Amino acid sequence: MILEIADIRIAPGRQAEFEAALQRGLDEVAVRARGFRGAKVNRGVESPERYVLQIFWATLEDHTVGFRQGPLFAQWRALVGPFFAAPPVVEHFELVTQVQAGPAP
Amino acid sequence: MILEIADIRIAPGRQAEFEAALQRGLDEVAVRARGFRGAKVNRGVESPERYVLQIFWATLEDHTVGFRQGPLFAQWRALVGPFFAAPPVVEHFELVTQVQAGPAP
Repeated sequence: MILEIADIRIAPGRQAEFEAALQRGLDEVAVRARGFRGAKVNRGVESPERYVLQIFWATLEDHTVGFRQGPLFAQWRALVGPFFAAPPVVEHFELVTQVQAGPAP
Repeated sequence: MILEIADIRIAPGRQAEFEAALQRGLDEVAVRARGFRGAKVNRGVESPERYVLQIFWATLEDHTVGFRQGPLFAQWRALVGPFFAAPPVVEHFELVTQVQAGPAP
């Protein structure tokens, strides 16, 4: 499993519209991509125009080749692209470790 | 629940040592912090010196006040700080939405 992290900055004041577009893009476009395994969207507290989008893919190529070079990408960008204040910064990651909290003291 | 995202760059070639130190920092220090709810560590594919550390906190203040201004922070920094190539970029986030993959086609 590969994690795509997209660091996104949108135009000020357009959070509600962007979140609706992103939800639609995930529900109607990304879920149809081969290797799509799920997504999380987080909005910045200190930077309310900043979003971190995490998408889990079965393989790196499911994102870089299958999705980006396939027919779904134009649909995705048409939905979410109009809100970008700058090109998103996108890289891929591997999970190193995860830690769960113990029982509350 | 609040998500802390720390974007970390370490010195080249020190991944194994850093990952061991980070594991120790999470297991021995962070888990003792009030409001700590879990953590994930991801290593960059395109940028192998880049790590994205996600820590889940019950409240923002559990991190910014309780942890950062409390006695555990010096222990944490003593473990992981020596590997940093630059000060980590840290902000906090709220979950907007998450999407699960449907059944495989």
